[in-house]
Amino acid sequence: MRAIQQVEFGGPEVLELVDIPVPEPAEGQVLIEVSRAGINFADTHQREDGYVQKQHLPLIPGGEVAGVRADTGERVVALTGHGGYAQFAVAPADKTFPIPDGLDDGAALALLIQGLTAWHLYRTCARIAPGGEESVLVVSGAGGVGSLAVQLGQAMGAGRVIATASSEEKRELCLELGADVAIDGDASDADALRDRILGANHGREVDVVLEMAGGPLFDVALRAMADMGRMVVYGISSREQNEVRTGRLLKRSQSVIGFWLFHYLERREHLEVPLAELFALAAEGVVNAVVGETYALSDARRAQEDLVARRTRGKLLLDPSR
Amino acid sequence: MRAIQQVEFGGPEVLELVDIPVPEPAEGQVLIEVSRAGINFADTHQREDGYVQKQHLPLIPGGEVAGVRADTGERVVALTGHGGYAQFAVAPADKTFPIPDGLDDGAALALLIQGLTAWHLYRTCARIAPGGEESVLVVSGAGGVGSLAVQLGQAMGAGRVIATASSEEKRELCLELGADVAIDGDASDADALRDRILGANHGREVDVVLEMAGGPLFDVALRAMADMGRMVVYGISSREQNEVRTGRLLKRSQSVIGFWLFHYLERREHLEVPLAELFALAAEGVVNAVVGETYALSDARRAQEDLVARRTRGKLLLDPSR
Repeated sequence: MRAIQQVEFGGPEVLELVDIPVPEPAEGQVLIEVSRAGINFADTHQREDGYVQKQHLPLIPGGEVAGVRADTGERVVALTGHGGYAQFAVAPADKTFPIPDGLDDGAALALLIQGLTAWHLYRTCARIAPGGEESVLVVSGAGGVGSLAVQLGQAMGAGRVIATASSEEKRELCLELGADVAIDGDASDADALRDRILGANHGREVDVVLEMAGGPLFDVALRAMADMGRMVVYGISSREQNEVRTGRLLKRSQSVIGFWLFHYLERREHLEVPLAELFALAAEGVVNAVVGETYALSDARRAQEDLVARRTRGKLLLDPSR
Repeated sequence: MRAIQQVEFGGPEVLELVDIPVPEPAEGQVLIEVSRAGINFADTHQREDGYVQKQHLPLIPGGEVAGVRADTGERVVALTGHGGYAQFAVAPADKTFPIPDGLDDGAALALLIQGLTAWHLYRTCARIAPGGEESVLVVSGAGGVGSLAVQLGQAMGAGRVIATASSEEKRELCLELGADVAIDGDASDADALRDRILGANHGREVDVVLEMAGGPLFDVALRAMADMGRMVVYGISSREQNEVRTGRLLKRSQSVIGFWLFHYLERREHLEVPLAELFALAAEGVVNAVVGETYALSDARRAQEDLVARRTRGKLLLDPSR
């Protein structure tokens, strides 16, 4: 089968198209003929071995796929851990979920890692107060998770959804997805960004920030957060960590909440309940996963480069048949 | 009336016993004849003007009292903000709550700031997962909030309650209050403390830390916290702030949650619901506020010194009649 493999860690150039045997499912695993593989920021960290989990070589990247179960013929999405950038992949049976009729493979895949993440950001981490009075700042509102978080905001109880995005085109998308306001997230002038955030919220500080950039943007967003506010950190795309002083959190009753979906994959209830709600919201038309470009498997390098360069919008997919 | 007043900021020596007029309640306030005033760490920060809120001179310390409403004769506890170290104090009517029969003034007062704090630490901040499998580390388990947090642990859903305390006597108290294990919280040997914490939890990292010390203890407790763990910071008694890196929180799906009761005083539902539950638990005998020493008003200096020196246990009170 065709697959993308890396035999060393490094830049996009380590990703090579190879021809290797179809993997054999072990006990408790299923074999899936992949129609679409999801591309995630985590893949780029894994490629450099800069990910939270150590990786082993040779590595076939790709933590999620959609396709057809080889044993039952059922259309499914699955969390693979790695191995997704290929024509066939194996996944644990308990991390494999059927795709309902009426939802295509790409749309379902876009609701898997990103949808589960967005759901947990709201329900497990931020816990919007009842009453619909709280505001949410969604960093990178045109991105994979961001675009879902923007759409889910109201359903999750937010009274006001503010999105950041780096271009006029992406900000237009955020508004189409239901953001009340979309602003430029450029943090090079910190005070100006803070003013834009407050201006987008009737002059008030925001209650919740869904943050995945890190660096100066994190610091500004923290300075734009209200008493009792929750900063949910689910990524550091800039690779710049931040430091938070406990005195500040105490003085303002604020929280910084780290979220990595990996920890929530162990218990099926952390997956089943959210996916059921997400698929139902998709069926109602409340959530429409934004599927961005679908790249040929042979273009995996370019796909990761585009993602890191933030030239993309929505969910990026690979088509292993090309 | 007799009162403790300070006309400058500084050490305990600025606290002076004076004779001043009885305060007049403004619109929406009530006058209370004080039977007991509560002594809190916050008072010592206010004394130095090192508190989160700026203070104005001359200052009568004391944020909470028990006593008798001058207008109705009802026994009450009340949140005064300041002015409690006196024979009479005024409090907002909506921050004044009747004391049920069978609960004495000191016990009710010990359930006010400390009880509200302990309740919110669990219910608002830590949110123990259902199932009774989570463990809680209560720092300073013999202290004002700590002694209540230890007692409340099981009622709030914790499966295991581990307390730290600085002396054998205090650790005995923690065990009497219901802690499963009590350990020495001395952080001078960080690895040894981490080993004690894990040893107290069957070798596993803890899920929740209720922290009010800061400095090395905070860092060790963070290193002893499990994936998806919540560190609730409600004080920094060592005056040593800590810094937390976002990468760490992300990698472990951990949270650092600041809590300052002040922010929760604005809405009566943040006070009424918890106090009702606390008074009910006290009536059932589940919670027995540990009342420590009751000092004469004229000994306010010594009381604050003892508190800061951590020579005390349980709730410290002032008796304005002495």
